[in-house]
Amino acid sequence: MTADDDNDKTARLRRQLALVVEADRLKRVLRRTVITDRSRHENSAEHSWHLALYALTLAPHAPAGADVTRAVAMLLLHDVVEVRAGDTFAYDAGALAGQHAREALAADELFGMVPDPQGAEFRALWDEFEAGETPTARFANALDRLQPLLANVATDGGSWRAARVTLGQVQRRMAPIEAGCPALWPWVCRTLDAACAAGFVEPDAPLTAP
Amino acid sequence: MTADDDNDKTARLRRQLALVVEADRLKRVLRRTVITDRSRHENSAEHSWHLALYALTLAPHAPAGADVTRAVAMLLLHDVVEVRAGDTFAYDAGALAGQHAREALAADELFGMVPDPQGAEFRALWDEFEAGETPTARFANALDRLQPLLANVATDGGSWRAARVTLGQVQRRMAPIEAGCPALWPWVCRTLDAACAAGFVEPDAPLTAP
Repeated sequence: MTADDDNDKTARLRRQLALVVEADRLKRVLRRTVITDRSRHENSAEHSWHLALYALTLAPHAPAGADVTRAVAMLLLHDVVEVRAGDTFAYDAGALAGQHAREALAADELFGMVPDPQGAEFRALWDEFEAGETPTARFANALDRLQPLLANVATDGGSWRAARVTLGQVQRRMAPIEAGCPALWPWVCRTLDAACAAGFVEPDAPLTAP
Repeated sequence: MTADDDNDKTARLRRQLALVVEADRLKRVLRRTVITDRSRHENSAEHSWHLALYALTLAPHAPAGADVTRAVAMLLLHDVVEVRAGDTFAYDAGALAGQHAREALAADELFGMVPDPQGAEFRALWDEFEAGETPTARFANALDRLQPLLANVATDGGSWRAARVTLGQVQRRMAPIEAGCPALWPWVCRTLDAACAAGFVEPDAPLTAP
């Protein structure tokens, strides 16, 4: 190895370390979800760990064509953009409108911190998750919907109850699970019905009589 | 698919979901390390995410024979036992003595929650990490030493300064990086020397003159 190779390797290492140190700030981005002992809100770093653990644990239920290893990498990276763009509450339509543009700018900046081809690979994983068109991205997205569901059930309604969300809103939010991980869908439907019966989510308003 | 298959699949799903919900408690296990904005201690869940991100990002520096995908799985699982056994401070020799026995019991209980072969696979990943004998486990262990180093440097000494740790103690703690990820070792040595010069760790007592 020449001195130039060595300098180049060290320069790349510095850029890679700069990204992981910057990513530490994800530990301070809070989500609406409450952790199961109800002591505080969840942050996006521990949420990302939890989703990756979901992917490993639920791998036997992943649909054909989903690459679980790739889904784990996607889930580890999918929220990193929030260190610059913040978290957006899933039931806040106004904030959701500008979310993708803010996050895409953050992705340019953050994944640009590491040298290519790695920076391009990270960006491709993030783009694939966001687009949600491959079986892998759909599986990862399904887990990103499922984990708050379990947290809310474990906390007697959690963020659903805090935001007075209705069953219909939650059903629409959970819909990607049906396509992303069909094996889980019957369990999800039964669990949402039970959550409504228990008062964790509000029933939808009845249709007005004609 | 028969009704029995379906019942069996649902029973397995319930056991898998029980593990990921139980694992949520890792978000409440605090480490000595301080997060980089210095606002609070790090918890073991977000630490596990951070290590898995380190593994993805530093993959180009992994030594021959290390399987980065397997290292990521190992890092996602390596601290889960703490939901029952608690975290043990790296510089507390008394607490370290009983640590492995406590954690092995927790591993039996927790990884036994999911059906085999998955439970056995998770246990094997945890055992491999603990034994630290394969290139993959050594790489994962190296990252588990490196991440607190970067956190302590970013916080002007962090947990080193709080515990008045000496350079020699830190050097011994970091030694597994040399075997686990040799490409990082020169950077680690330079960084520790600089940390000592900056007063983040205490110099070792000089040898007594003869």
